[in-house]
Amino acid sequence: MSQIYDRVALIGLGLIASSMFWAIKRAGLAGEVTGYARSDATRETARRIGLCDRVCNTVQDAVEGADLVVLCVPVGAMGAVAQEIAPVLKPGATVSDVGSVKRHVIEAVLPHIPESVHFVPAHPLAGTEHSGPESGFAELFDNRWCLLVPVDGSEPDAIARLRALWEGMGANVDEMDADHHDLVLAVTSHAPHLIAYTMVGVADDLRRVTDTEVIKYSAAGFRDFTRIAASDPTMWRDVFLTNKDATLEILGRFTEELFALQRAIRTGDGEQLFDYFTRTRAIRRGIIDAGQDTDAPNFGRGTTST
Amino acid sequence: MSQIYDRVALIGLGLIASSMFWAIKRAGLAGEVTGYARSDATRETARRIGLCDRVCNTVQDAVEGADLVVLCVPVGAMGAVAQEIAPVLKPGATVSDVGSVKRHVIEAVLPHIPESVHFVPAHPLAGTEHSGPESGFAELFDNRWCLLVPVDGSEPDAIARLRALWEGMGANVDEMDADHHDLVLAVTSHAPHLIAYTMVGVADDLRRVTDTEVIKYSAAGFRDFTRIAASDPTMWRDVFLTNKDATLEILGRFTEELFALQRAIRTGDGEQLFDYFTRTRAIRRGIIDAGQDTDAPNFGRGTTST
Repeated sequence: MSQIYDRVALIGLGLIASSMFWAIKRAGLAGEVTGYARSDATRETARRIGLCDRVCNTVQDAVEGADLVVLCVPVGAMGAVAQEIAPVLKPGATVSDVGSVKRHVIEAVLPHIPESVHFVPAHPLAGTEHSGPESGFAELFDNRWCLLVPVDGSEPDAIARLRALWEGMGANVDEMDADHHDLVLAVTSHAPHLIAYTMVGVADDLRRVTDTEVIKYSAAGFRDFTRIAASDPTMWRDVFLTNKDATLEILGRFTEELFALQRAIRTGDGEQLFDYFTRTRAIRRGIIDAGQDTDAPNFGRGTTST
Repeated sequence: MSQIYDRVALIGLGLIASSMFWAIKRAGLAGEVTGYARSDATRETARRIGLCDRVCNTVQDAVEGADLVVLCVPVGAMGAVAQEIAPVLKPGATVSDVGSVKRHVIEAVLPHIPESVHFVPAHPLAGTEHSGPESGFAELFDNRWCLLVPVDGSEPDAIARLRALWEGMGANVDEMDADHHDLVLAVTSHAPHLIAYTMVGVADDLRRVTDTEVIKYSAAGFRDFTRIAASDPTMWRDVFLTNKDATLEILGRFTEELFALQRAIRTGDGEQLFDYFTRTRAIRRGIIDAGQDTDAPNFGRGTTST
């Protein structure tokens, strides 16, 4: 793979940025990768583990001279960071981001982008329940989707270059408009996360079922919810606050459907339950066929079990 | 490991029974294991893959002379099977089951058990999203919990022997009363399953978000729900119909909590969301510490990815 950018700046050094760094290095996609994190501890960790070619003490140092600047901070912090870096952005550079919500990010960031700079929002659909600079790995994006959400006036050349970077990091790339992105993600990610958080919270609250029991006997389904509900609290708070309408719409739909199934349970309507469960099984088959999961039975243990 | 029973009969040859067979063989826990399934196709498959030492064409043949009979059929079918086998049960034998609901199974099965036979209900907390005779494997119960739910008058010797069998198959064993079992499982398994089924159903219904998109972009959280929602429809229909009260109680609690979080989103209460998400993260840590999952990041791909 040949070099796509001379210099890439990663702002915010969590799971996504650290995985981007290792994936960029794996394929030799950039001449130099600079990095910046607001916290001293994160910058120290990054230096210790060799994350980024150069870790800078100010966001301006990291951004100066970069051909591509990727905002990898929580969605709620994007606007402030864009404002900070605007004066030092190199003419002709591209600014992108990795936020899970796109309409809000565009509204918060775009006003700060100088005319001479391109803005191409993006969202890699990849992650784990871990966070922080040490959680990244080069394979995170392999065979995962990255959605590019160009704004009015995004230059085709700037889009094509960013696409090449993501493909070089192993991802498949699609383009989508911001509102549709936010609705699709509300269904596939945002609503499921809130539901998982809620169920784990309910289990925690129930005093008749002790914490120990819930944890001991989690293998029966609950465990998958706790994995989802272990994701970064700051990131998720921002997602819900900034994709409010779509998330609330899907949750409303979910509650309606849940009430219908509760009623089927209460009235003993086995046929309705059976038909419903049969239909959902087919969706799982579709996901395996689409290569977004394997058919290997998951019973909660990695191969390097401890 | 030494032999615990001369002859074990497995009634119903799905995921649990087939895993029990391979686990019993792995440790040499029984002299002979007979098997029976109602469907011709399942019996044929069992014979072809060497599942059970002897596959019988009638349930009575499988049960006759057995020291332990394990009912591995859906919860709703347990009573009818118990009635069928009652006349041929060997005096001194033990009948057990692997149903996910215990109060209902006890009410359905116990009236049919002859005085000379012991009844010790059990529930292994292990499974995958696969079902059928070919889905079993010897390691399914390793380091998983099996809950024994003795009834009034269960003989200590019969309980101890069944415990030894489950420990021999790799499980950790606990005892619990039926009502408490049904409540704990409503929290850790039954409610989470209904919620996952519902969310997958909602995604399927949304016409503005095409099926293809939901499947393509499932990696962001939704995929874990589809795994849970791919479980056997018959088994789960029966679970909800027979653990109705506890499941509905937990779902009511869940809805209440979900409404509170929806309200926090609507009113923009970031602090409440952040605190909630921070609390649920701790539960995940507890599960890893308890050895019921590993810390390995799960991003949806087995090690033998295709």
